Amino acid sequence: MAGDLDFYFDFSSPYGYFAAMRIDALAAKYRRKVNWTPILLGAVFKVSGSMPLTMIPLKGEYALHDFLRSARFHGIPFRQPATFPIATQSAARAMVWLQQTVGAEPAIAFAKAAYQAYFVDGIDIGDPANLQHLAEKQGLDAAAMLEGLNSAPIKEQLKNNVERALQNKVFGSPYVIVDGEPFWGFDRFDQLESFLMNGSI
Amino acid sequence: MAGDLDFYFDFSSPYGYFAAMRIDALAAKYRRKVNWTPILLGAVFKVSGSMPLTMIPLKGEYALHDFLRSARFHGIPFRQPATFPIATQSAARAMVWLQQTVGAEPAIAFAKAAYQAYFVDGIDIGDPANLQHLAEKQGLDAAAMLEGLNSAPIKEQLKNNVERALQNKVFGSPYVIVDGEPFWGFDRFDQLESFLMNGSI
Repeated sequence: MAGDLDFYFDFSSPYGYFAAMRIDALAAKYRRKVNWTPILLGAVFKVSGSMPLTMIPLKGEYALHDFLRSARFHGIPFRQPATFPIATQSAARAMVWLQQTVGAEPAIAFAKAAYQAYFVDGIDIGDPANLQHLAEKQGLDAAAMLEGLNSAPIKEQLKNNVERALQNKVFGSPYVIVDGEPFWGFDRFDQLESFLMNGSI
Repeated sequence: MAGDLDFYFDFSSPYGYFAAMRIDALAAKYRRKVNWTPILLGAVFKVSGSMPLTMIPLKGEYALHDFLRSARFHGIPFRQPATFPIATQSAARAMVWLQQTVGAEPAIAFAKAAYQAYFVDGIDIGDPANLQHLAEKQGLDAAAMLEGLNSAPIKEQLKNNVERALQNKVFGSPYVIVDGEPFWGFDRFDQLESFLMNGSI
């Protein structure tokens, strides 16, 4: 018990972005660590037979409204990006490369910056050139990152992330597993906090 | 503004049951009325291309866990019924008949009793004989209700409920619309309360 929070997310997921803005503070409050694990929802949706929220009739329109309202409700800056959803292989691989090359902390800082670039500033983080620019702003070796994210070991690691997610029955973003207990969605962070506080619900 | 809460729900929906246990008290706190509108999710899912949660790979298993945990978290008695989901035409028509024949208040009391019978006592409320027994316990004219729920005008009214729901872009249960603002899911009752308190989010 008292294990780490395994945090699975896709860089194109608004609720994943909300979770990313809050999960480190939540975990720190209960002296837990967070394992940030970028995944590709597209690969996961193939198994669960799902699709991006905004493409589902009726639910899609509501979702666009809910993203904005949930952001206001929780006090998180948010603008719906013009291009949505986007392919997030490059962003996820960039984070994986940073995790392996410079460590968890700068990789997490980069992930937060990438999420904010996309969901606040409307920058298309599906474009490697924009990821490069972000890495430069973070003082990272952007050229090495760009080269690294296309390497076979990094592609392999991201595939492993997705496989591990599926083995753990992850079907959406954000998805948190702690001490074997799964929490899907930013709207379960209240239950997640209760679990961290009391060790059970 | 300051209009009623239009509350759409299906009698086979666990989150609809949670909402049914709480919506009247929430509305009363902000001096609002609730229009209880039973619908058939099956008809709605045909439009949104969705299906019962528990039938979706991965998500289904999680949902069964989430029903129980959410019930504990919110302090609402709940047991997963052995037969799930069930056809809810009869229960919905029974409520519509009561609404038209004896008024909103006893119809709502019956709806709550039906939800509790299903989600606490495991009684199959898809079976008209069980609805009859429930009506008897509520001191209602159970024989008249059983006959009435198969009448053409009652079937027509339930169809109208579903059509109105679709016109209002309802795609799930529970779904609340107040002052033009839509809230899907019991997990948006925190935002619903904020909206009722402040008139906006």
